Amino acid sequence: MAVRRDVRRSLTAAALDLFLAQGFDETTVDQIAEAAGVARRTFFRHFRVKEDAIFPDHDAVLREIVGHLEAASPLVPPLTAVTEAALMVVDTYATDPETSVKRYELTRRVPSLREHEIGATSRYQRAFTAFLNERDGADEPRRLRHEVISAAVVTTHNHVLRAWLRGGGTGDVRAELTEALSGILAGLQPWLDDRDRPREVEDDVLIVVTRRGTPLWKIAQEIEAAG
Amino acid sequence: MAVRRDVRRSLTAAALDLFLAQGFDETTVDQIAEAAGVARRTFFRHFRVKEDAIFPDHDAVLREIVGHLEAASPLVPPLTAVTEAALMVVDTYATDPETSVKRYELTRRVPSLREHEIGATSRYQRAFTAFLNERDGADEPRRLRHEVISAAVVTTHNHVLRAWLRGGGTGDVRAELTEALSGILAGLQPWLDDRDRPREVEDDVLIVVTRRGTPLWKIAQEIEAAG
Repeated sequence: MAVRRDVRRSLTAAALDLFLAQGFDETTVDQIAEAAGVARRTFFRHFRVKEDAIFPDHDAVLREIVGHLEAASPLVPPLTAVTEAALMVVDTYATDPETSVKRYELTRRVPSLREHEIGATSRYQRAFTAFLNERDGADEPRRLRHEVISAAVVTTHNHVLRAWLRGGGTGDVRAELTEALSGILAGLQPWLDDRDRPREVEDDVLIVVTRRGTPLWKIAQEIEAAG
Repeated sequence: MAVRRDVRRSLTAAALDLFLAQGFDETTVDQIAEAAGVARRTFFRHFRVKEDAIFPDHDAVLREIVGHLEAASPLVPPLTAVTEAALMVVDTYATDPETSVKRYELTRRVPSLREHEIGATSRYQRAFTAFLNERDGADEPRRLRHEVISAAVVTTHNHVLRAWLRGGGTGDVRAELTEALSGILAGLQPWLDDRDRPREVEDDVLIVVTRRGTPLWKIAQEIEAAG
């Protein structure tokens, strides 16, 4: 497994260097395989097409993220779970800044690669929306708000990531994204807070009035806020 | 000009019907031209490739929108100008519901057409961001907020448009979008309102304390609110 992963990484590095040096269209799979010191068929064991060689394995990341969201405790506020998921995405870039910066250079030059990246982004966005619909309710205008929140998270992710890549991949992109998301989501949190609120009666007694079916994490949040 | 526009519309109608009936890949430009009763070269006077035939002229719409935004008075709140621009986009679908619904059917079946549509959407989003940066200031975290607002507008546009298309293109999509945007943007408006505020001193005297360079529409808004 470790060996396969190393081969994959060598192929990615070779592909990136060749694409940047001689152009994407001008580079063949044979040249990439040769530069990585493996056979042509080894390339196709890891990637279907040339484009795939330079991107993080978005399908695998998406599966991880969906798993993370589905496993999130009902006591965790949904926006916290989504923030964690966005950090998991940025981690796939942060673990190898050099490759990420080269890939960014390349996607700026080759439109088809840029589209590949935009497509991946929209899949993450849909996963966030599906999660929010499931945890927070899927009626209107809640559905629209969940879509907007997911778009806001992905937009913020891309904004922070782009700035980091333009700066050569130095600095703590994870910390920057955490801060930026907390600013943006603080503005959107009220959209998830507009249900029945608990009412305090006495100092030591807290009566929580809430709708049947209200998610547990909301009740917990209200109790904490009231306490 | 009117004739050219009619030819264009016939070609679009013919292309849509053929794509839906026999498949996108299976349809040739010659077949489309024949069905529209024009020569092959006429097709290429209107469209570069097969894909272009079925989409609204996004480049022309984008030029109109940028023109509208640039012409907006500095007294118009930026979010109002952006809302109007989003309504201009939805109008391009609302003027011909039948074509819009067929095109939607088709983009759901053919991934490459869906990507074309997503690409157009992201160009509108960038135009909104550029306008907000110009009118509201381009420092951080303002830039990020402008990007998120633009993503929210485009997401809301697509959400309302999709619901309308799924419903067969009946109902007033413009009114629905106006209402949805006003709900979403009311939540985001505070991001554009957090500068120095004017302070009232006496009943009949209004002293506006504001930063040099504050946009006129903001001062006007504050004066109106204070009065």
